[in-house]
Amino acid sequence: MASPMAARRCVSLVPQLRPQLRKGGWSKGFLRSFSCTSNWRLHTKDMDEEMLATLKVNQGRLMEDLHYTCQWGTGQRWGDKPTETGMSRLALTDDDKKARDWFVATTKALGCHVTVDSMGNIFAVRPGLRNDKPPTFVGSHLDTQPSGGRYDGILGIMAGVEMLRVLADNWVETTYPVGVVNWTNEEGARFPLSMSSSGVWAGAIPLAKAHGLREIAPGTATMAEELARIGYLGSTPASYQNIPMGAHFELHIEQGPLLEMANKKIGIVTGVQAYKWLTVRVSGRGTHTGTTDLKSRADALLTASKMIVHSHKLATANSALASTGILNLKPGSTNTVPGEVTFTLDIRAKANETVQRLKQQILEDFKKIAEGRDVQGSNEGCTPSLPCTVSITEDFDSPAMTFHPDCISAVNQAAQAVLGHNSHNLVMDMVSGAGHDSVYASKRCPTSMIFVPCRDGVSHNPTEFCKEEDCALGAQVLLQSVIRFDRVKDERRVTWKQEPYTL
Amino acid sequence: MASPMAARRCVSLVPQLRPQLRKGGWSKGFLRSFSCTSNWRLHTKDMDEEMLATLKVNQGRLMEDLHYTCQWGTGQRWGDKPTETGMSRLALTDDDKKARDWFVATTKALGCHVTVDSMGNIFAVRPGLRNDKPPTFVGSHLDTQPSGGRYDGILGIMAGVEMLRVLADNWVETTYPVGVVNWTNEEGARFPLSMSSSGVWAGAIPLAKAHGLREIAPGTATMAEELARIGYLGSTPASYQNIPMGAHFELHIEQGPLLEMANKKIGIVTGVQAYKWLTVRVSGRGTHTGTTDLKSRADALLTASKMIVHSHKLATANSALASTGILNLKPGSTNTVPGEVTFTLDIRAKANETVQRLKQQILEDFKKIAEGRDVQGSNEGCTPSLPCTVSITEDFDSPAMTFHPDCISAVNQAAQAVLGHNSHNLVMDMVSGAGHDSVYASKRCPTSMIFVPCRDGVSHNPTEFCKEEDCALGAQVLLQSVIRFDRVKDERRVTWKQEPYTL
Repeated sequence: MASPMAARRCVSLVPQLRPQLRKGGWSKGFLRSFSCTSNWRLHTKDMDEEMLATLKVNQGRLMEDLHYTCQWGTGQRWGDKPTETGMSRLALTDDDKKARDWFVATTKALGCHVTVDSMGNIFAVRPGLRNDKPPTFVGSHLDTQPSGGRYDGILGIMAGVEMLRVLADNWVETTYPVGVVNWTNEEGARFPLSMSSSGVWAGAIPLAKAHGLREIAPGTATMAEELARIGYLGSTPASYQNIPMGAHFELHIEQGPLLEMANKKIGIVTGVQAYKWLTVRVSGRGTHTGTTDLKSRADALLTASKMIVHSHKLATANSALASTGILNLKPGSTNTVPGEVTFTLDIRAKANETVQRLKQQILEDFKKIAEGRDVQGSNEGCTPSLPCTVSITEDFDSPAMTFHPDCISAVNQAAQAVLGHNSHNLVMDMVSGAGHDSVYASKRCPTSMIFVPCRDGVSHNPTEFCKEEDCALGAQVLLQSVIRFDRVKDERRVTWKQEPYTL
Repeated sequence: MASPMAARRCVSLVPQLRPQLRKGGWSKGFLRSFSCTSNWRLHTKDMDEEMLATLKVNQGRLMEDLHYTCQWGTGQRWGDKPTETGMSRLALTDDDKKARDWFVATTKALGCHVTVDSMGNIFAVRPGLRNDKPPTFVGSHLDTQPSGGRYDGILGIMAGVEMLRVLADNWVETTYPVGVVNWTNEEGARFPLSMSSSGVWAGAIPLAKAHGLREIAPGTATMAEELARIGYLGSTPASYQNIPMGAHFELHIEQGPLLEMANKKIGIVTGVQAYKWLTVRVSGRGTHTGTTDLKSRADALLTASKMIVHSHKLATANSALASTGILNLKPGSTNTVPGEVTFTLDIRAKANETVQRLKQQILEDFKKIAEGRDVQGSNEGCTPSLPCTVSITEDFDSPAMTFHPDCISAVNQAAQAVLGHNSHNLVMDMVSGAGHDSVYASKRCPTSMIFVPCRDGVSHNPTEFCKEEDCALGAQVLLQSVIRFDRVKDERRVTWKQEPYTL
């Protein structure tokens, strides 16, 4: 076994590459070949806790990578500092292509084999000592919301690149290959289907459907057209069968306030909550506000307001979430009582049964509210009026997902190692409220996620922010999780077995 | 006094004019001159109840006029019959010009002097026996909503024309002049200020402001430009001082369901309720629906929903009306809790004090609701969450208006006479919920209104409908009201005194 000190003597090689990489001047002469330097290698399976602790992410370098790549698709400015802008890097735009090109060049420079599949997913794989099992991946996405921030997705990719840098710096050879995957169009902001490309990879979304997704107006291009245009329509079929993964770890900004409020640094994500998206349409009668007395109205907006308040009460009673993000009404005139209101209802809970029960209660109670019947005091103090009608459709159903215990365990151990004796105060188990590519990845391989704090819980917003030290802590836990998972990979029998995914 | 029979012998003259009028072929030769036919005249002051009752509107002719003129600006079809379409005759369009031209030609043919003022208001005056007092007017409007019906405004004008026809048919000479006025842009649908031209006439709206009103997008013309373009920019200043009125009666479709629900035929409108238009802006925080627990939210839409329900409760408690017709939210995404909601609040009551009290309660309670405090159970069953802020502006204030007792009395007597011994079952006193030109007219002369039933209370809608017999009954009450008012005009001392109008 080479000593860690010997390994560290070679660290200086890699930083020299960086300026050339950034200028696109990568020369093959600098590529360190694993086949001819075997005596310099540090093997993960041979590392003890002390040695593992010496593998540290470089906070400055991580943030440099992150902000450097945010030059492509810079969004709205919210502060005075150069990095205080949001991001607007929609999938498969010219800016996205530039970020992708950087990712390919950088990971290749770090010794990776790069595969692009038919959904433009980019798999950068660093070979291991043995290559007879699929790689352990770090994955996330480079695309953003039209008015998004610098951390959602991007941090996960940059932490993956930083992992590759640390392994390279320290001449670490993993037992099995490790990789970083950039999933295409996670946000679904340009092509309206979230996590569309990890979904195709997992076999949950048909390739033709994803290829045919048309960008939101005013543009008219399809996803396949844009993949071809920017040169990322790969020849390898997007499928877990063609590109199998041994595991998938994802570092992500929390997008909620729980870590910050609890003063925690690391969220160990044990699963993703279940959710359904409903559309509620309330039909009443559009009438003149001045000439129609209260009892002669079928006020669709008053009825919808009662429903929205009631959905919140039901969510509270069920320890669930219920949210209305969109509401439209007709005809829309100050002196006309709305005759029709349509609103969305996003309901979530940890367990599928809770979401199903909440939906059932909504169906029953909304019908009563529309008919003018009192539901838990909904009519108290109100004038009895004419009935409305309500129709409710379920647009999307995402069942609850539990991440793999081995991945969760690896993250847990990594967090404890990184945060030391105070880790019990700084780490908390969480359930992800939002969907992520990890949801689809977990259909086909052991998966888990790591959350880092999100300022004020604000995400999908230019001001989205995670402190540099928190980003680095998360990246450190990610790195250690991957190595720990790699170390136990051949010691255990993976019992993970996926059911075919059904929507 | 000439006998009614003698008068009726001459009726046949007028119908002969109709085809020529419709072809625009009016000839002065047909004009019956009052100055040379005095011995044929029937004088209103000499008529007893029996004779008054013989003056009857012609239902078929009234509806023929109404539907004939609806060829200009025909709107959306809602039924199979030729007349089963709505109207879309925006003020000062080519269609409005055609309807105006018909009105001018028809009233001139019926012996009227026509004056067009600087707001395009058309005053058609039929001379009386004495002309030393201002005319008693019937008034309403020929313009419609973009997706309006055939009755709102139009019925009032057609009933005025029918009044002129009946007086002509029966060779009736009123003591004082009577007239019909078509007010410009009552709807405010094209040039966004309701009752703009009666407002200028009353001195409540400056002429320059009205002339400068720009039509709603995509057009860019001003009201003055359009008045000039269609030839209705009159040289007489639009003012009660230049064109004084002795009284103003208006027949109008109710636009609400009260008459229909009470099985009444005639509404005696004793005044117009007070109203204010408020805009409420609720600011919270836009966050992810999946990652933000209920207690960490400042949900602007949940808060607005509580406010809308509460405004209804306050209206109920105050025997008032509160209505939200417009609601907009940001950012508008299924999985984002709205950070900002803006909605309108239209509050009305018979008394100014009630509207003021209601507004005050809204200001106080909405602040509490925004802060997360409970107001009459508004938080029961809810999760305590982060506060929102609220700001409320008052956009429009229309104080209550009480119509003139003499006009109300004339309508009351007319309704009793027309409906006979059953009138107590068919007539009801009402307060108008909506604004009308009569509101401005009543600032400068004794005024009242007559309502007729409105199917299902639906108005500002292509399907707006009033039965033919109900239209005719209303026109009959209007006719008799004008004659009754004319009869008492020189017997009483008008005590009406107007305060200068202030908004």
